[in-house]
Amino acid sequence: MGILETISTPADVKALDEAQLDQLAGEIRTFLIQKVSATGGHLGPNLGVVELTIAMHRVFDSPTDPLIFDTGHQSYVHKILTGRRDLFDTLRQKDGLSGYPDRSESPHDWTESSHASAALSYADGLAKAFELGGQLHRHVVALVGDGALTGGMCWEALNNIATSKKRSVIVIVNDNGRSYSPTIGGLAENLAALRLQPAYDKVMDSGKYALGRMGWVGDRVFQVVHGLKEGVKHTVIPHEMFSDLGIKYIGPVDGHDLRQVENALRYAKDYGGPVIVHTMTQKGKGFSPAENDEADQMHATGVIDPVTGAPLSKSKPGWTQVFSTRLIELADERDDIVAITAAMAGPTGLAEFAKHHPQRTFDVGIAEQHAMTSAAGLALGGLHPVVAVYSTFLNRAFDQLLMDVALLKLGVTVVLDRAGITGPDGASHNGMWDLSLTTIVPGIYVAAPRDGKRLQMALDRCVAISDAPSVVRFPKGSVPSDVEAIREETDYDVLCECASTNDASTMTRTRHVVIVNYGSLSAQALAAADALKDHGYAVTVIDPHWVVPVKPALIEAVRGADLVVTIEDNGVKGGAGSVLQAQLNDAEVDVPVRNIGVPQEFIDHAERNEVLEQYALDKEAVARRVVEWADKL
Amino acid sequence: MGILETISTPADVKALDEAQLDQLAGEIRTFLIQKVSATGGHLGPNLGVVELTIAMHRVFDSPTDPLIFDTGHQSYVHKILTGRRDLFDTLRQKDGLSGYPDRSESPHDWTESSHASAALSYADGLAKAFELGGQLHRHVVALVGDGALTGGMCWEALNNIATSKKRSVIVIVNDNGRSYSPTIGGLAENLAALRLQPAYDKVMDSGKYALGRMGWVGDRVFQVVHGLKEGVKHTVIPHEMFSDLGIKYIGPVDGHDLRQVENALRYAKDYGGPVIVHTMTQKGKGFSPAENDEADQMHATGVIDPVTGAPLSKSKPGWTQVFSTRLIELADERDDIVAITAAMAGPTGLAEFAKHHPQRTFDVGIAEQHAMTSAAGLALGGLHPVVAVYSTFLNRAFDQLLMDVALLKLGVTVVLDRAGITGPDGASHNGMWDLSLTTIVPGIYVAAPRDGKRLQMALDRCVAISDAPSVVRFPKGSVPSDVEAIREETDYDVLCECASTNDASTMTRTRHVVIVNYGSLSAQALAAADALKDHGYAVTVIDPHWVVPVKPALIEAVRGADLVVTIEDNGVKGGAGSVLQAQLNDAEVDVPVRNIGVPQEFIDHAERNEVLEQYALDKEAVARRVVEWADKL
Repeated sequence: MGILETISTPADVKALDEAQLDQLAGEIRTFLIQKVSATGGHLGPNLGVVELTIAMHRVFDSPTDPLIFDTGHQSYVHKILTGRRDLFDTLRQKDGLSGYPDRSESPHDWTESSHASAALSYADGLAKAFELGGQLHRHVVALVGDGALTGGMCWEALNNIATSKKRSVIVIVNDNGRSYSPTIGGLAENLAALRLQPAYDKVMDSGKYALGRMGWVGDRVFQVVHGLKEGVKHTVIPHEMFSDLGIKYIGPVDGHDLRQVENALRYAKDYGGPVIVHTMTQKGKGFSPAENDEADQMHATGVIDPVTGAPLSKSKPGWTQVFSTRLIELADERDDIVAITAAMAGPTGLAEFAKHHPQRTFDVGIAEQHAMTSAAGLALGGLHPVVAVYSTFLNRAFDQLLMDVALLKLGVTVVLDRAGITGPDGASHNGMWDLSLTTIVPGIYVAAPRDGKRLQMALDRCVAISDAPSVVRFPKGSVPSDVEAIREETDYDVLCECASTNDASTMTRTRHVVIVNYGSLSAQALAAADALKDHGYAVTVIDPHWVVPVKPALIEAVRGADLVVTIEDNGVKGGAGSVLQAQLNDAEVDVPVRNIGVPQEFIDHAERNEVLEQYALDKEAVARRVVEWADKL
Repeated sequence: MGILETISTPADVKALDEAQLDQLAGEIRTFLIQKVSATGGHLGPNLGVVELTIAMHRVFDSPTDPLIFDTGHQSYVHKILTGRRDLFDTLRQKDGLSGYPDRSESPHDWTESSHASAALSYADGLAKAFELGGQLHRHVVALVGDGALTGGMCWEALNNIATSKKRSVIVIVNDNGRSYSPTIGGLAENLAALRLQPAYDKVMDSGKYALGRMGWVGDRVFQVVHGLKEGVKHTVIPHEMFSDLGIKYIGPVDGHDLRQVENALRYAKDYGGPVIVHTMTQKGKGFSPAENDEADQMHATGVIDPVTGAPLSKSKPGWTQVFSTRLIELADERDDIVAITAAMAGPTGLAEFAKHHPQRTFDVGIAEQHAMTSAAGLALGGLHPVVAVYSTFLNRAFDQLLMDVALLKLGVTVVLDRAGITGPDGASHNGMWDLSLTTIVPGIYVAAPRDGKRLQMALDRCVAISDAPSVVRFPKGSVPSDVEAIREETDYDVLCECASTNDASTMTRTRHVVIVNYGSLSAQALAAADALKDHGYAVTVIDPHWVVPVKPALIEAVRGADLVVTIEDNGVKGGAGSVLQAQLNDAEVDVPVRNIGVPQEFIDHAERNEVLEQYALDKEAVARRVVEWADKL
């Protein structure tokens, strides 16, 4: 029987001796590789934080001392050590274990969202609350990646954490030199320089030696670790950046050396004020296919072979690839097109673009705000920037899109991948907000293409708009076959147009339903049309391509209908249907409207198809709902 | 004749000799005091940047070299030097000079928005564009306050600016130790420590001496300034924070010593890579009432006496004061209420709160993201935080409200001052986005009180909500007399209810219009009701207090009406009217709806009343529009 099986609480981890801890770390790695290979998930990051997480639970007293993970995808080891080992077969599945911290799973989880760089702000608030409540003995611990440190929120938080010398906030920097892909920016270069210093190796060696002799915990640990810190300070480049802010800095510490990490954390715990513990780790540690993966150390995998790391499910060409290929073609033709990613060149398709146009690709770090406003600067400089981000991360750059791009009438194209329901990553990753946000921006153009061909067309149009921001949104996953129009009007396509089958027999005017489909749920729209037709209604399915601006022709196409149904893969509040409704009100066209979209709720993790079924957004449910509405008219 | 009258382009400034420059600086100060006293505006900040701006225009070649001001309210001197001196009598008035950079005014203006901390991102983008275009000889200059540096965007930008050693980005830090009020945080403490070092004064003196002997421009300026830099580096605390990022640091420089500033900028210009020039200035310099104003050095004034600085227009008690007074009362009763401001304690009413509850007031700097997520942390720690920000700045914290507060179901109250049309500060300060943003957040409560009494009631309710975010929004200006209900239902007030005056004579059923008023435009709603009544309609005016959640009783109150009109002081797209419409669609209540609100446009500066008139939101126009709609039914 292994040690891992005996661990169900942090107290169990605290009880282990040195040899057992080394064994535990090994068993956790084996466990992670086996389980995540079978389910898919964030393998690389969690292999990198095995020792860090063990040390956190040995030194601190969770949940009295909050442990916060930034981002939450590096919390698997934490879950294993807090009684959730048996749930890993259900990882990221419907009703199963979340891939992020989840307060409903455990009192050891304090947060849920996994938008990066927020942990230090939570920590600052918690520490302030503990101080006001007379609980200065409680420590707040945040584990934050070097990638997350490129986000401005961390800076705002550090600036505040530094204001109190007595609140115990321990910031553990998990520095693997990779966020999703290599971390960029001046900070990263400085960290890299630190790694390359010959003195660094010496320090690590001597530190190991000294600590090895001292044993795990001893009276002189404080002095030893302090000595380590001094040694670092005088032999390699000090991180005065943090000292300038007034935050104690300890490091660098070998993040895979449990003794070093644990002693550094004990020192930080006893320090009695804000401390940064800088640890160096290797993403994917202990799984050679991950260690050797140059792209992102198997940051997030699907189902893979647990030995070779080879993917076992081959995914079909997706929306991302259609976008990437087309953007490369456009940039081949036009010198002024540049591309911007916020640390996600691979997942957004810009890695391929960068191979073709390296000088015209900018990775700004996990910094969506800067992505957008530096795009404004690029546009002011005469270029046409294309900012490619996940839909849900646009939330971070709304103000910049509105005030820094749209107010200046700049030609910046925003490409929103993973729009709509994404699924297994849960509430913080569903891209269900973007249409509500973008459509309130004055002068903007927003496209929701229904298929790959329409995506290409929308992108072509967007990069031709030089005096306003433009947006293309598309979902996760494989791109459907092109859905050709049966008729193309100037400003919209007609995908289906059928008179009732029973006009003659009833003598009453056949009621006419117009379905307006925005984007990727066109199969649902067409299924609803079929059902309506079967029930004796006349039906037209329209695809306007663009959510805004709303073309007058679309209003005319809808005028006179007995019922208008809008369908979109976005939160129903403020989305495409709401935009059309507002225009109808303006035009004084008083037609009953029903809106189909994602309900305005935080949606738990499950497969995309499962979510669509759960919220009656699959073909059968949409058809049923639309017929019911029509029948009630 | 003064020198100022001879200046109409930057070339004129370049042609002046040393004595003339000193005179020019004095004349500009006199001019600013005279003009801004008469119009109101950002007096203190501009008095602080007279020498900086002169030096920028002497050293760089605007507009070939973009000069970017962060925030734009410190661009008055720039406007004076670029041919707009004669327009200052119209400052911030309708069709007059903008209080911020404005691209339609001058090719010397590159940006328009005045949300803080964005300048460095623009600068990074511009420098990248110049590099790609083979224009590395063009310098990009950003003037940024020490307050703006507390915003995370600056950190994201610096991290990117540091990635290129050859793009010429000159960041001039205007360090007056005040953003709106004293700048907070670890950075500010470090800057303050720098000021207090005895060595600093010596450096400044010796620097002055050396530079004085050298004259304004000379062959050895490079060496002299470099010497100054080295002197600073070795005698006072170095700003290794910036060196850590790989950005050249020069400073500190006395920002009111034109020679020092100019020489530092020439060095930075010749450096050929990113440089930070750290200048120390005094906000309000040269106007003793401003210098001696402890609150904010007359950051922004109304009309004042140009000698004493005393306000000449007495403003009536406003919404802010009602909020502030009530929050203090609530916090007197409840220990768990804490308040957060993002560097605007005075304008949001929290300065008064801080006097009563200093330990429970947190100023986080110009850092709205951190304000919101640290509030989440405070709530996780058992407190009830009240985050008070201007409506327009909530844009910066949308993701944090959604993902860090609402997803965790935390009791955080957000108080949005300056919601709706604010007026003279123009497009970037109108608070017309918040209802569209907040109402898409799952589980949120959003109140739009119509008067001071309802504001108190809403705030009382908000701080009692412990499992969801809550929002109260109210406009700028004086609070109207309380508008009492003629009948109070459980979930809404009826402000007016009148049957038609001509029921008997016509025999036809009187058409019934329901007006739903959200917030501060209730006078408009009541005016419309009077007009409808005069035209023979039955009319009911309802105030639901809360925009979301929409109560079933409200839907029932509206069902059966012939026309529903919604009125709000928010962008009409996605606002309160849109929320009601969506609920009506959901409930299958098919009533014609018309939405009155701010059109989805960027609105130029003018008085609030002028804007309301311009967009047909004044009483007469609203009454006319509503009657026209009713007549067409």
